[in-house]
Amino acid sequence: MEDIKQYMKNVGQAARAASRIMAQADTATKNRALEAIAAAILNGSVQLIAANAKDVVAAKANGLDAASIDRLTLTEKTVRSMAEGLLQIAQLADPIGEISGMSYRPSGIQVGKMRVPLGVIGIIYESRPNVTADAAGLCLKSGNAAILRGGSEALHSNQAIAACVHAGLRAAGLPETAVQVVNTTDRAAVGELITMKDYVDVIVPRGGKSLIARISEEARIPVIKHLDGICHVYIDDEADLDKAIRIADNAKTHRYGVCNAMETLLVAQGVAAKVLPPLCKIYLEKNVELRGDAAARAIVAQMKSATEEDWRTEYLAPILAVRVVAGLDEAIEHINTYGSLHTDSIVTENYTKAMRFLREVDSSSVMVNASTRFADGFEYGLGAEIGISTDKIHARGPVGLEGLTSQKFIVLGGGQVRI
Amino acid sequence: MEDIKQYMKNVGQAARAASRIMAQADTATKNRALEAIAAAILNGSVQLIAANAKDVVAAKANGLDAASIDRLTLTEKTVRSMAEGLLQIAQLADPIGEISGMSYRPSGIQVGKMRVPLGVIGIIYESRPNVTADAAGLCLKSGNAAILRGGSEALHSNQAIAACVHAGLRAAGLPETAVQVVNTTDRAAVGELITMKDYVDVIVPRGGKSLIARISEEARIPVIKHLDGICHVYIDDEADLDKAIRIADNAKTHRYGVCNAMETLLVAQGVAAKVLPPLCKIYLEKNVELRGDAAARAIVAQMKSATEEDWRTEYLAPILAVRVVAGLDEAIEHINTYGSLHTDSIVTENYTKAMRFLREVDSSSVMVNASTRFADGFEYGLGAEIGISTDKIHARGPVGLEGLTSQKFIVLGGGQVRI
Repeated sequence: MEDIKQYMKNVGQAARAASRIMAQADTATKNRALEAIAAAILNGSVQLIAANAKDVVAAKANGLDAASIDRLTLTEKTVRSMAEGLLQIAQLADPIGEISGMSYRPSGIQVGKMRVPLGVIGIIYESRPNVTADAAGLCLKSGNAAILRGGSEALHSNQAIAACVHAGLRAAGLPETAVQVVNTTDRAAVGELITMKDYVDVIVPRGGKSLIARISEEARIPVIKHLDGICHVYIDDEADLDKAIRIADNAKTHRYGVCNAMETLLVAQGVAAKVLPPLCKIYLEKNVELRGDAAARAIVAQMKSATEEDWRTEYLAPILAVRVVAGLDEAIEHINTYGSLHTDSIVTENYTKAMRFLREVDSSSVMVNASTRFADGFEYGLGAEIGISTDKIHARGPVGLEGLTSQKFIVLGGGQVRI
Repeated sequence: MEDIKQYMKNVGQAARAASRIMAQADTATKNRALEAIAAAILNGSVQLIAANAKDVVAAKANGLDAASIDRLTLTEKTVRSMAEGLLQIAQLADPIGEISGMSYRPSGIQVGKMRVPLGVIGIIYESRPNVTADAAGLCLKSGNAAILRGGSEALHSNQAIAACVHAGLRAAGLPETAVQVVNTTDRAAVGELITMKDYVDVIVPRGGKSLIARISEEARIPVIKHLDGICHVYIDDEADLDKAIRIADNAKTHRYGVCNAMETLLVAQGVAAKVLPPLCKIYLEKNVELRGDAAARAIVAQMKSATEEDWRTEYLAPILAVRVVAGLDEAIEHINTYGSLHTDSIVTENYTKAMRFLREVDSSSVMVNASTRFADGFEYGLGAEIGISTDKIHARGPVGLEGLTSQKFIVLGGGQVRI
């Protein structure tokens, strides 16, 4: 236990020192490192897959479930896509050093902001080893040092990827300690990581809800977190019904296990009898279980009865809660009461209702006439994302490079003093 | 204790409900409330001063120190300046609803950001009752609800100011619960406030370092905090000596007890013998105690000897630590090691060194050829400030209206779905 404490302190100090070098690294050097890491991953794919096989064998022996083993397994295809992801990050604009808003003040000083790295980012994640490469790439490009703590079931895979990352950093003349992968499976290491205020500036947990909830509870460092994705589509009585059906179908059935999938459909009373029958026919054909309130069940007989609990549930499965509401006010009220501040969409042709929905729904992504499935760093043009934040301070929604930075004030003077 | 828990829960629930109304209040309504509060404060100045007198009498009886009593005392002048502060806030641009960066994506959706309130702000402060009006005004204009917890020594004053705030909110048709002043002096109320995750979105502590440190330690909600202000001026060997002397004098002696005052002066070796004698003459004439390293003492004999502890100390007093450094690298190293991420300034005529200092010093305000005393919301043109953040996520440096907001993503579609 004391050993873990000391080990993590060493990791933290090395990260802090490396963060100062990374903050000053120029764009070309950072891109060179990303390209070299991508090359090392491609050239080392045989070794990566061999290291990964050790983890997979152990995971199977330990009885890990099939879905987790699937996430854990590296194939030639996933190795290639890790490398491609890094090359894409190399092509993104460098956010660091961006100066904005410089304006003169009556005192004669000129004041504005400069974008700077956060410093040291601690990332805690579960079985997917590709997160090691993604997170390393995003932290590197944004001028931060990273401490990565992957799942114990992926230790060999993560260490093998770390070796590629270190080779790339070395090739670009950057310190290997800019990206450190914690090499112990002891859980106490996480406890240290999330409380080392002097060495870590922000924690990004990626994984299941219970992991994230536990980390937020115990952390003594700001956490950029993503809890539930209880997303809604509201079909207004002035909706274009073609758009409504297309969007509500896509938001639920395009992928079930993702955080930006719709979990509750809200339909305006005035249009429910018209839109629910054709829409529910699609759902039922796709074997989506429907749970409706009394008004919805009166229209579509195949629905089960929804309880209060359904409005609060992130199914991540082919199950959909359906509620008929009086109109926009009740829809907004429902979303702000039961939603999770993630992503919500209105389908309407009415300008005033669209504007009210945009303004009044308090979620990290609010949409008009678009599928909730668009809430994603790539779809938004961020280039890549380190996660989706359901917090309200710092970054909301998909977090890309910019979410790993902040802005400091800069003042350009000519000898001015306060009088 | 159970009563306090229930009381604070009621306060929190009322604040959450009010925050939804405040988020949608239009600019004119918010400004009308600010003007009505200002009028109520001016019209009620006799009652305010009478209520304040009760606090002052009690504080004297309790042996509160003179400086605290000074901060506690309301005069006609401070009452007037509270009202003027509110009118100034009314004149600031409304940050809420600002839409930026809308651009089309290949999928056909248009994506950008909308500025929104944080929700409910908890503000914890000490003896100055004027914070009640300032904080209420800033939260109101930024569309947030506020829960204010002032010092127990100012309870009567704060309640009297709260009555004016409520009158103004009522006059504008806004809920009184948009600004609640906690009406118990029980310390357990603070413990509840900083852990009510469901009802409070961010905590802003204003007060001494120990208050802020304790709150950060115990909070379960993000804290926008300001710890030390260990500010530096570095006089480079290519400095204009007139500017250097003017800035170093102003940064230390303009006001001593403020967080943006210089606490350590760094001087390049090549210029120390030239600049320190005339500069230290000014300090000594103003009775500033000087504590130097060996090299500085070799030049100015009247210096005491500085210890390692001096480099880490925020004096808030007429005391200055002085260190001679080899040049820019050593200055940056010193600042990043001993500084508090607050405000640091270089005096130089050299372009490359100025640019390096701006980029490499990791503080919330970094300046070239200007006094550190400019690090202030009014001087920066923010119009007002709720505090100065030395954190690295969300807001850095002076926090004005914008620091009490965040940005959500908005998506304008035409029926698009993910394919």
